[in-house]
Amino acid sequence: MSDEAPPPAHQLASVSSSNDESSSSTAQKARFSDRVRIRSILGRPDGGAGLAGQKVRISGWVKTGREQGKGAFAFLEVNDGSCPANLQVMVDASVSDLSRLIATGTCVTVDGCLKIPPEGKGTKQKVELSVVEVVDVGTVDTATYPIPKTKLTLERLREFPHLRSRTNSISAIARIRHALAIATHKFFDEEGFLYIQTPIITTSDCEGAGEMFQVTTLINHTEKLERDLIENPPPTEADVEAARAIVKARGEAVAQLKAAKASKEEITASVAELNEAKVSLARTEERSRLKPGLPKADDGKIDYSQDFFGRQAFLTVSGQLQVETYACGLSDVYTFGPTFRAENSHTSRHLAEFWMVEPELAFADLEDDMNCAEAYVRYMCKWLLEKRYDDMELMAKNFDKGCIDRLKLVASTPFGRLTYTKAIEVLEEAVAKGKKFENPVEWGIDLASEHERYLTEVVFQKPLIVYNYPKGIKAFYMRLNDDGKTVAAMDVLVPKVGELIGGSQREERIDVIMERIEEMGLPVEPYEWYLDLRRYGTAKHSGFGLGFERMVLFATGMDNIRDVIPFPRYPGRADL
Amino acid sequence: MSDEAPPPAHQLASVSSSNDESSSSTAQKARFSDRVRIRSILGRPDGGAGLAGQKVRISGWVKTGREQGKGAFAFLEVNDGSCPANLQVMVDASVSDLSRLIATGTCVTVDGCLKIPPEGKGTKQKVELSVVEVVDVGTVDTATYPIPKTKLTLERLREFPHLRSRTNSISAIARIRHALAIATHKFFDEEGFLYIQTPIITTSDCEGAGEMFQVTTLINHTEKLERDLIENPPPTEADVEAARAIVKARGEAVAQLKAAKASKEEITASVAELNEAKVSLARTEERSRLKPGLPKADDGKIDYSQDFFGRQAFLTVSGQLQVETYACGLSDVYTFGPTFRAENSHTSRHLAEFWMVEPELAFADLEDDMNCAEAYVRYMCKWLLEKRYDDMELMAKNFDKGCIDRLKLVASTPFGRLTYTKAIEVLEEAVAKGKKFENPVEWGIDLASEHERYLTEVVFQKPLIVYNYPKGIKAFYMRLNDDGKTVAAMDVLVPKVGELIGGSQREERIDVIMERIEEMGLPVEPYEWYLDLRRYGTAKHSGFGLGFERMVLFATGMDNIRDVIPFPRYPGRADL
Repeated sequence: MSDEAPPPAHQLASVSSSNDESSSSTAQKARFSDRVRIRSILGRPDGGAGLAGQKVRISGWVKTGREQGKGAFAFLEVNDGSCPANLQVMVDASVSDLSRLIATGTCVTVDGCLKIPPEGKGTKQKVELSVVEVVDVGTVDTATYPIPKTKLTLERLREFPHLRSRTNSISAIARIRHALAIATHKFFDEEGFLYIQTPIITTSDCEGAGEMFQVTTLINHTEKLERDLIENPPPTEADVEAARAIVKARGEAVAQLKAAKASKEEITASVAELNEAKVSLARTEERSRLKPGLPKADDGKIDYSQDFFGRQAFLTVSGQLQVETYACGLSDVYTFGPTFRAENSHTSRHLAEFWMVEPELAFADLEDDMNCAEAYVRYMCKWLLEKRYDDMELMAKNFDKGCIDRLKLVASTPFGRLTYTKAIEVLEEAVAKGKKFENPVEWGIDLASEHERYLTEVVFQKPLIVYNYPKGIKAFYMRLNDDGKTVAAMDVLVPKVGELIGGSQREERIDVIMERIEEMGLPVEPYEWYLDLRRYGTAKHSGFGLGFERMVLFATGMDNIRDVIPFPRYPGRADL
Repeated sequence: MSDEAPPPAHQLASVSSSNDESSSSTAQKARFSDRVRIRSILGRPDGGAGLAGQKVRISGWVKTGREQGKGAFAFLEVNDGSCPANLQVMVDASVSDLSRLIATGTCVTVDGCLKIPPEGKGTKQKVELSVVEVVDVGTVDTATYPIPKTKLTLERLREFPHLRSRTNSISAIARIRHALAIATHKFFDEEGFLYIQTPIITTSDCEGAGEMFQVTTLINHTEKLERDLIENPPPTEADVEAARAIVKARGEAVAQLKAAKASKEEITASVAELNEAKVSLARTEERSRLKPGLPKADDGKIDYSQDFFGRQAFLTVSGQLQVETYACGLSDVYTFGPTFRAENSHTSRHLAEFWMVEPELAFADLEDDMNCAEAYVRYMCKWLLEKRYDDMELMAKNFDKGCIDRLKLVASTPFGRLTYTKAIEVLEEAVAKGKKFENPVEWGIDLASEHERYLTEVVFQKPLIVYNYPKGIKAFYMRLNDDGKTVAAMDVLVPKVGELIGGSQREERIDVIMERIEEMGLPVEPYEWYLDLRRYGTAKHSGFGLGFERMVLFATGMDNIRDVIPFPRYPGRADL
């Protein structure tokens, strides 16, 4: 049996051909569209000049448009999101009504011929498009378009999360973010790690890493119930009594018939009536117990057995504990997914929803862990310099002059490594020499951001790994060092953002971890499954977590975390 | 300033060296561990034979262990999760107490020498390890270990989500799942798509795709409030009256002082007392209004302005609408993330939390969309055959004989394509010839799973794309075809699972989409941002969604979706 509509031959060819842009001497069509990406033209080593004379179709949004020659022709700067650069497009008035093309935000698909621009025009472009036909136009009402040509502040752009990807800055950040995510998967895949999707909805608490959002269907059910109770008021106590009386009466009727040795039919019919009355009573009693509000158990607490998962459930704050279960079976794994904190933070560094990369390495100690963290961060920096230099140039020009140098520094410099104890000494020396910190410095403190940034930016001027922290300020699952005072924890500090990574060797000794849990006053029961990993075939293992948005901040030089995630969530805001 | 503890030279070398396993003539150490992965030995084309004579350290968990030669030595089958095959490890009793090594689940790290096994032993292994030193052991209490040597059913294994990754089946599925995820990112990156992380917490509803979980901090706050009200009962009406009386009295006192032209100091002091009383009254009134239960607005509905995001928020059911906003600016994008349905489904095909891949292509029509979907699915199948053939062999042996052939079929065969109308004709012909379906067949129905599987498995015996569905059964955002009856929607059907992908060209015409919203009785307001994409520079665009777990089911041949995700969530269950 043959198909009704086999695809035309040119499409089959397209499906099986590859999409290598750089080496081609003809403009390479996007594989799943009839257009050529602007990156395929302008992103070539020759800036597209080698394609002059070729006919291409391009699509994109007009960044700026202007009529010239008294309306004889128009120049459009068109961007399709494939690269930061715009293609200059020249349209003659004989080809199209120019007025509907030039507004910022207009979407155009045009066929044209690539040409070397006339010399002396002062343009940096190696090639421009001379339009033969305007194929499609999506117009813009300039009076109401919220993202006009005039530059809006980043803060104002946050009001339009559905349109801000059309701006130079947000689109460059999106491409950089993409590159970092791909580099993440590439690095770990190449190193033999398996990507494990840890759960988003969880019934565990990663040792109180932060306030959690609750996930529930109880409120919805309660609202339905309350509407129903208004429409159909529940039975009163009198109704229940009446139903009970009927059961009693029918029970007596059955008893009488039996006593009177009535016929089988009579008794059967009477029993059926009794059963009916019992069912009705049960229903009435059940409904009489319905109350508005969330369902409560006998102890007055909310009855989570009626919630979707039969117990209280939350959004995860970290996939670490769960991914450890896979490390203790598959050796090297990582998770890369969204995590959540219901904290009322209004800072430029906190989000309620953010992404974390959490590798976990079996048969690895703290030094292996540090090596992995360093290799991963340096890999990302190299990748970005290689793949998105054009976007980095845009960031350097518009936001942070030093961002490219910072990437180069991290890509090329081995990270400094020093113990927490040594770090405190260094800070104390600085204080002795007159350096002022807001937070006092002494052994045992959690390093504050000002301390971390002083160490990495001022003292060492490169990325640093601080390790072996006091056990009192770290989580129960971190491996106790032989000194009994410190744990095998490490933080990676980088210029601009401070702490980028936190990690540790995990405590694999069942007796030691039990002691730590007790010492910290934590309940044991919720961690029984986690302890099983130590009870049965325990393995030395280590891991760390990288806040993905922090990495994007570090790379781009942006200041506000709300600008480096497509749809930021924070107190009072969850647009779209 | 120099670092306190520069890493030893051998570790720096390790950090900068690459990790190419297959081409090496010496056993390649894992980069962030002192062990050699078993895959680096057994996964070589020569099965590891070329490494005979080399000393290596390996780590892993004992699958089976047996003492032989009256306790003179032991054979251990050791697996480290890097591949399905176990390494055979021989330990002499002179090297270690054998009894603590042989229990299933024991974790061992051993140094040894790779050797060609003696001929005629009946083993398929090309190499085995003769142990020189046992470096580390994580023992197992066989009496309580839940994952013993005896094979447990998949259903029973679900009771131990933290340990089941140690089994052959679940670890093979994890590696296959990893390969499919990496293939997904590789495919889209190579094709010039950008990975966009759409939000997990959302205030939008993707046109009622399903029941949604609510995300809230209200219950937590309510519980705190209720505890507080018990500890500190709210003021009574009398308390409020008393506070009011104080304010009144102090107000009169101020008035009297003023009337009496008292000194400035006296009046100021009196006014201060009045203000204090006012503050106290305000607090008392506020607390008197506190009630147990969720906060209610004046209309009796829950007051979501007090919730974390200032409005009702949910877990996403699809990232499509949000990712469209990035397609209409960056052209080609995709999202790959968790999605949620709060549906009370207890089937083997539904999860409350599952992962979706949703590409969105600007300047692409339905045919481009189909081409992309087909290329993507075929890419994944080829990738799996290339990268994880050993795991596929395990699945074929243990679960589904046909799974490798199915992958080969899909990788090599162009997909059939037929319209919905034609599909109905084919089904009607089948019915006319005596085929029985549970669901009646006629134009306008939504194809049931039995119809889909009959088309792909029996009639065409290959993957199929059915397109141009009746508008009545499809979403408002799908592009209306010129016939006015159908929309440019498409489903990819594959043997074994039926529908794998659903997609469509999106309606880019503002007037048509407004009509469709009205026609379907949907409110306009929640979609204003989505409509903005059509109002300002609208672009032809298309996209689709692939249920990632369905793809894993298709690839592995597993029957129950709960076995192809690490931590399944469904009604009544959210372990860990």
